[in-house]
Amino acid sequence: MKLVVSLDSLDNVEKADIVELRLDLFRELPDPAEVQRMENEKIVTVRRSRDGGKFEGSEEERLKIMKKYADFADYIDIECDADEKFFDMPCRIIESYHNFKETPDYATLKDLVESRRGEIFKIATMGRDRKDVLTMVRLLCEYENVIAFLMGEKFSYTRILSAMLGSPFIYCHSGKAVAPGQLEVGTARKILEMLL
Amino acid sequence: MKLVVSLDSLDNVEKADIVELRLDLFRELPDPAEVQRMENEKIVTVRRSRDGGKFEGSEEERLKIMKKYADFADYIDIECDADEKFFDMPCRIIESYHNFKETPDYATLKDLVESRRGEIFKIATMGRDRKDVLTMVRLLCEYENVIAFLMGEKFSYTRILSAMLGSPFIYCHSGKAVAPGQLEVGTARKILEMLL
Repeated sequence: MKLVVSLDSLDNVEKADIVELRLDLFRELPDPAEVQRMENEKIVTVRRSRDGGKFEGSEEERLKIMKKYADFADYIDIECDADEKFFDMPCRIIESYHNFKETPDYATLKDLVESRRGEIFKIATMGRDRKDVLTMVRLLCEYENVIAFLMGEKFSYTRILSAMLGSPFIYCHSGKAVAPGQLEVGTARKILEMLL
Repeated sequence: MKLVVSLDSLDNVEKADIVELRLDLFRELPDPAEVQRMENEKIVTVRRSRDGGKFEGSEEERLKIMKKYADFADYIDIECDADEKFFDMPCRIIESYHNFKETPDYATLKDLVESRRGEIFKIATMGRDRKDVLTMVRLLCEYENVIAFLMGEKFSYTRILSAMLGSPFIYCHSGKAVAPGQLEVGTARKILEMLL
């Protein structure tokens, strides 16, 4: 299991196993050649505002940005409701579902996982109670290559739990959380060392 | 949620919110007056060998030992298959189920919880796979005052998870684990601080 650090610039890349370039948060888009030179494994993400990001442009524009970096990325993160044409990429795909309001019930999330088009399916939903934890644990127990955790400060521990149950990545920050409940990468690493 | 430290003597009591006096592990039984003077909250336990302890005597003897300390204990830990007469105690009761071989299925454990005679029900079973984690999480989500975690080095994290899902206690050690996967109390405290 690897620690991913979400970045809003090309600084602070040294602590991560994988960097997630949140291009929607970059002040300006980085030079693709500079991205290519980075030694880390890379996830490229252009998150729309409705999914918790800052990208406000059209889907055509978003696809164009993704394509520009796809050749140098190890993974592209594509939302599960995106058009089919997003899924034709020269790298591996993390298909993602975000919900900042709530955690849908098990049946709904199970359907999403079963119709996945990406190699890895990522589910990040707002946690409200223990029932949501159970939903998440069920998904992690029944499917491989699923990342599932609950957002919210009270539910940071589900990011560690997800890894313990087989998630390939834990999403962390390196100073400034880009999602509610995200752990600092050094903290996540320490917790894992103490538990394993 | 409180950190319990399991003890095999009256040393090292200072770090715990609650001490569990594992009388079956004591070289000789402590003076009840000394137990009475201890300022910590106290759980008194006389664990049989078949439940992972070292007590080899008869149930009559075991009951006699428990009665001797019950007036000074906050809790007595009594195994769920113990005779009714064990449950007549002047303190609160933690009813416990231990299984060092496996984690029974949800229906079996649910029956145990539903027929409980103690205020708190503690389930400590050997973990083997993710299915066992799911069983444990289901129990914690559906019942109050349940402590449920998986034994085994790989499953130490379920002791933290149990607390996150509402368990009143986490069982720790203060130098020497008395059960597989038990965390050192300082480590458990640090992990909780980093997560909360």
